[in-house]
Order: sequence, then structure tokens, then C-alpha cells
Amino acid sequence: MDLLIRNVRPMGRNPADILIRSGRIARIAPAIEAPDVAVEDGGGHLAIAGLVDAHTHLDKTTWGMDWHVNDQRATLKERIDFEREHRLEIGIDPHRQSMRHALGLVAHGTTHIRSHVDIDTRHGLAMMEGVVATRDALRGVIDIEIVAFPQSAIITRPGTAELLDQALAAGAEVVGGIDPCGMERDPKGSLDVIFGLAEKHGKPIDIHLHELGELGAFSMEMILDRIRTHGMQGKVAISHAFCLGAPDWQRTQGLIDELAELDVAILTTGTPSVPVPAILRLKEAGIRTGAGCDGIRDTWGPWGLPDMLHRAQVIGMKNGLRRDADLEYALHVCSSGGAEVMGFAHGLAEGMPADLTLLQGQTLAHAIVDCAPRPLVVKGGRVTARMGELVGLVMP
Amino acid sequence: MDLLIRNVRPMGRNPADILIRSGRIARIAPAIEAPDVAVEDGGGHLAIAGLVDAHTHLDKTTWGMDWHVNDQRATLKERIDFEREHRLEIGIDPHRQSMRHALGLVAHGTTHIRSHVDIDTRHGLAMMEGVVATRDALRGVIDIEIVAFPQSAIITRPGTAELLDQALAAGAEVVGGIDPCGMERDPKGSLDVIFGLAEKHGKPIDIHLHELGELGAFSMEMILDRIRTHGMQGKVAISHAFCLGAPDWQRTQGLIDELAELDVAILTTGTPSVPVPAILRLKEAGIRTGAGCDGIRDTWGPWGLPDMLHRAQVIGMKNGLRRDADLEYALHVCSSGGAEVMGFAHGLAEGMPADLTLLQGQTLAHAIVDCAPRPLVVKGGRVTARMGELVGLVMP
Repeated sequence: MDLLIRNVRPMGRNPADILIRSGRIARIAPAIEAPDVAVEDGGGHLAIAGLVDAHTHLDKTTWGMDWHVNDQRATLKERIDFEREHRLEIGIDPHRQSMRHALGLVAHGTTHIRSHVDIDTRHGLAMMEGVVATRDALRGVIDIEIVAFPQSAIITRPGTAELLDQALAAGAEVVGGIDPCGMERDPKGSLDVIFGLAEKHGKPIDIHLHELGELGAFSMEMILDRIRTHGMQGKVAISHAFCLGAPDWQRTQGLIDELAELDVAILTTGTPSVPVPAILRLKEAGIRTGAGCDGIRDTWGPWGLPDMLHRAQVIGMKNGLRRDADLEYALHVCSSGGAEVMGFAHGLAEGMPADLTLLQGQTLAHAIVDCAPRPLVVKGGRVTARMGELVGLVMP
Repeated sequence: MDLLIRNVRPMGRNPADILIRSGRIARIAPAIEAPDVAVEDGGGHLAIAGLVDAHTHLDKTTWGMDWHVNDQRATLKERIDFEREHRLEIGIDPHRQSMRHALGLVAHGTTHIRSHVDIDTRHGLAMMEGVVATRDALRGVIDIEIVAFPQSAIITRPGTAELLDQALAAGAEVVGGIDPCGMERDPKGSLDVIFGLAEKHGKPIDIHLHELGELGAFSMEMILDRIRTHGMQGKVAISHAFCLGAPDWQRTQGLIDELAELDVAILTTGTPSVPVPAILRLKEAGIRTGAGCDGIRDTWGPWGLPDMLHRAQVIGMKNGLRRDADLEYALHVCSSGGAEVMGFAHGLAEGMPADLTLLQGQTLAHAIVDCAPRPLVVKGGRVTARMGELVGLVMP
């Protein structure tokens, strides 16, 4: 795909044109001559590499459906049980809903997704099949990586480990996991299964760790031990990692130092209601950090949008960021940071894949705070959205 | 002002019409006959009483101006000093900017504002004069109550107490204050001045209390002591009250019980980056609770919108609310809750002032989460905005 985008401000710098040849960025410079190539007017907008949603759940949103009234006072386990038992009767078809969710992300400038997809003994691989159909339908529009996610726990629901094994054999790229203590009730047993599957399939790991304070720190230590013994340095991400937001600096710094040493990545969603890892602290420690929208408008709760620029806002506000330079780092976490965790080439530079989005705003920080519609979204040189509206794509 | 609004869902209930006579709600019922009255089509939208921003700063926003680049790593005192010394050179004209801020609130459905306005020895009453001009210009469009706010502190800047006295004599309705320890460095001295001014002018008090943990608890105790000795029960609000978000339940419950006993109101902004009082806990204790947008896009930081429905979102997310009924309470805090703190008649009921706004959404919770443009805003029977656009009003 060839394209010339005229008059944009790459990462907020001076105006330039971006020439795309065969789906890659061929040149970034003022006044490029390329008479054979289709032209888009960049309108002087900001240009950044595509946004990356590195932690979401494509299979569970009610986006585009009737409002789901939530009347439960529920624990984490009750929310999980409710979703598993009622998702189909509520009408959350995994293919239709993952299409809506993913296309919403496209319209808002996201070019890559890592999605956890529930694998459990109630539904087997049905949720994953729906998301795989979406991944196939949106090839060339947005890249989707699938985490086989045992949300209902492995140990307490026999048969789950075998389903995870099947999901990984069937193409899930990442081994998922959930609170080894809080949900699994067996940290040793569950982590041994997860690391065993990762070793068997040669695939990376991404574990949800909601556990707070000392419990989360304990589970994190159990994970770190296994990274060392299994030689999984650089191949594990921990999602949420709320325990790193605990107030004991000495305790959390010990964990952060070990995360850095073992090159463990952190994925944050900036959840406003709980402690979260401080992204500037992770940056200082050199820890790869990405972000995600998490579940949006699902049976767990009503919040969230399929929009990683909005997520940069949520993360920025939660982290108490005020300086423009710090807001730019929040945007980095929501774009290149996710790419560093998932491990693909990403950036607004010559030779890189032509995955990019334009933003409205005088500066990058202004764009994050305003969160206005994206003037143009490009994936591999193909225009996929313009001013928040999909181009050549239909929302089901 | 007379008006008939056809086909709305009052507070999410069954469709009805709302008849307004002489600026008050005369009747709420299906199929009202009133052939002499102008008609607005409510389009089946939700109707609520007007939103109330009970804690904002009209005199300091950069809304509608060029993006202000923030490059300071600043303490609270440094932010205050920077703003005081540079606000005029940056071009933050208190009248123009308070007009923009207030009209932004109007466009988003707010009908009442309580604004803190800086009173200090650098600018005297100049900021208040700008906001008073806005209050006069917007009479009948939005009600504005002014808190004489010694943001730069009273005790450390001699002459401030006299300026507050002048501001209260000149029409400020409420005596303000700021962190008696952290900013004033003299809790006894500053609180004695504040309570003395309240007594002299017969006016209520609204104190900013950012202090965290035990320091904030100590300052709160000092305030509570004086409420008792000055007989100010029911006449004091504490804004932010971050110390009530501290983890020691026993300690904070003691404070909450005393707040309830002395009928002290709490005003929250749901700040995502610090501990905040839990609104459901305050509700359980019977504490009047309102909310505000706080400063928006000012030299302190980039966040915030002139939109109390968005604030209900921020507060809902920060408080970890998921149930529809709990979201509705967040909306209450952003509307009637503020009215209970400020003390004016408010509600979608016959006999009440015709201050109301329509919301888009299937349910109230849906409206909060979507935060779509308000179809109609009415103040005292006058239409002030339609679909997010001002009606008969010009943004300067």
C-alpha cells in the first residue's frame, strides 16, 4: 500500500509529509515529491505511531447492545461466575461483540490489540473461536494477539488446563493466568501449570494479578521464582500488578528491582479505584510498560471506551501527571510501550510499518486531554478511519 | 417563564410532560394540555434537575485559550505561587475566563455554581471583580455563589485577612480557607481568622483540606472544635477532605461520626490520584455530599471539563462504582447533593424552580457513562442550551 500524507506534525515536531511505500514508512520530510502516489491531507494535525491496546477483553463487551443493568454487589469471583453463566443469555456473542470492540478501537486509532479471551469448562474454546473469526475478518485492519485466559481459574475447575493446551495448539499466542491465590486458591499448582504450558508451546505468559498488598507481592514472588527457574526472562508480562501500588516503598522497590532484572513487563489499565503501579517509577527502573482499555462496558462494570487515547487520560489522571512531558510518557505507554511488551516493530520512523494515527491538538498533551476524534488512521498504508468514522468497514 | 416540555422520562421513570409556569415546575404528568405555552420536544430523553457544580474555580481556567505547557515539577505551594505571579502575563483574564468556564457548564447542563475565587495581597479583589461581572452577566442563566478564597494563605501573607473582610462585605457569600497546616503553617491562627470572619459577616464556611492522613485528620479536628464553639453546625463544608480516604477505618469513622453530628458537608472532586472520601460511606453516615469539577485546564494541571456529568464519571470510577443504583447516587452528588450543601430548592418536582437538563441514555447510569451532549438545558424556564450548544448566549 502506497500513500502520501501531507502536512502533519510527527510526534508534535515541525510539519512534514509522510511517504508510505508497500505498507512501510519510506520517508518523513517536508515537501516530498511522489506524483504516482495517492495523497491524504494531514491538515497540520499531530502524527503518532498507531495506538496499542495491550490488555483488553474482546469477548465480553456489551458495546452497541442495550444497556446492561448491573444490580449485583459482587466479589471478583461472583462477577466471574455471573459472566460465565449468563453471557450467552444476555446476548454477548463473542464474534459480533469482538468485531464491535475491535472496530471501535480502529476508529479511535489503535492498530494492535492483545486480547485475553476466556477459556473455561462451561464454554470450552467457543469464545476464542469468535475472536479468531474477528481476527481473520480484520486482517490488514488491526492486528489481534490472543491470550488463552483461564478467567474462571485452572485448579478449581478441572479440565481447564487441557482446554488451555488446546487453545495454545489452536493458535492462541500467549498463556494467560489469574490471581494464583485469590482465584486459583493454589499458587504453586496454578503457576506450575501455566509455566509448564508456556514451556511446552514455547509461548510467552501474561498473568492477571489483581491481588493487593502483601498477597499480590507473594504471588509476584512465586511468578518471579519460576521465571528464573524456567529461563523465561523477557517473556512474561504481569497485568494490573496492583500490589506495586502499595505504600511500603522498600517492599515494592525490591519487587521492581527484580522485575527489571528478569525483564518482566507490566501492563497497566490505570484503574482509578485501586492502587496501581506508578508508570514514572517503572520507567525509572527501565521496565517495559504497556497499557490497555481492559474490559469495556461488560457485566463486570460500565466503564471504559474502545479508545487508547482516552486510556492515556485515565492513566494520566490516576498517576497524578500534570507536566506535558509526563503526559507524553502516558501516551508512549499507550502506543510504543505496548509494542515493546508484545514485541513488534513500531514507531513513526523510516522503515517501520505504516501503522499510524493523526491526533487533533496543539501539542501531544493537548491531544490526550481533548481526546477529539482522530482525523486519520492508517494500518499498513491503508486508511481505516477518518474523523472517528470507519472507512470501508462496517460495524456489525 | 412558561414552557411545556413534551415526552421526557423524569429521573428515568415513565414518559411524561413537564409544564413550567413563571419559572417553576407547575406539573409533571403525561399528555398535559397547555395551549397558551411554548412547547419543546423532549424526544423521550431522560430529565433531571439541573446539575450543580459546588466546587470549582471560575477565575483560573485557560479554557478556550492556547494550550498552556506545564513544565514544572511543583509542590502545592509552588503551584500556588506560580499561578499567582504569572496568571496575568499568561492572559488569564478573570472575567473572560470565568465567562467561558461558566458558559461551558451551562452548555453541559449545570444550573448552579459555587466558585472559590482567589483573594490575595498580589491581586486584591481583582479576581473576584471579574467573577462578579460574570455573575451579573449570567443572571437568569446560571446562579453563581462566590467563596472568598485565600489560596495563598492568610497568616503567611499579612493583609489577606483584611482583603477577605472586604470581599465578604462586597458580596462574597462564603468564607473560604486552605490547608491550616500545610499552607497556613498556623492552624490555630488561620482557623481563628476564618471562624471570626464567618461570625462577623454571618456567612458559612467552605475550607479546602488537601492534607493527607493524620495531618488532615488533625486539621479536621481543629475545624470541628471551632464549629462546636462557634455554633456553626450545618454551616460548614469541607472540600476534598482527602484524609477521610485514609485506610484506618476506626480513625476515619470517628471523624465521619463527628462530621455527621455537627452536620458538616463534604464536597468531593473524586481526584483519581489521591485517597478520597468514599461517597457511599458518607451517604450511610447521612452526610450531605456535593461535588465539583474543581479547577479545569489551569496552571495547576491539564485535566477536567466544565461538565458535571463527566464529573459523575470521574467520581464513579474513582469510587469503584459498578451498580446502576450506585451510579445514580454519584449523579445525585453532582446535582441535588450540591444543592443540599449550598442550601437552595432543587429537584424535579412540582413547585420547584424550573432548573433542569435532559440527558441522552436508556437509563441514568447509561447517561453518566456515555456523557453525550445534553439535548436541552433549562434555567428558570428559559432554554439556555440545546444539544451542547448555547441558545441566545455567546461564548466570549
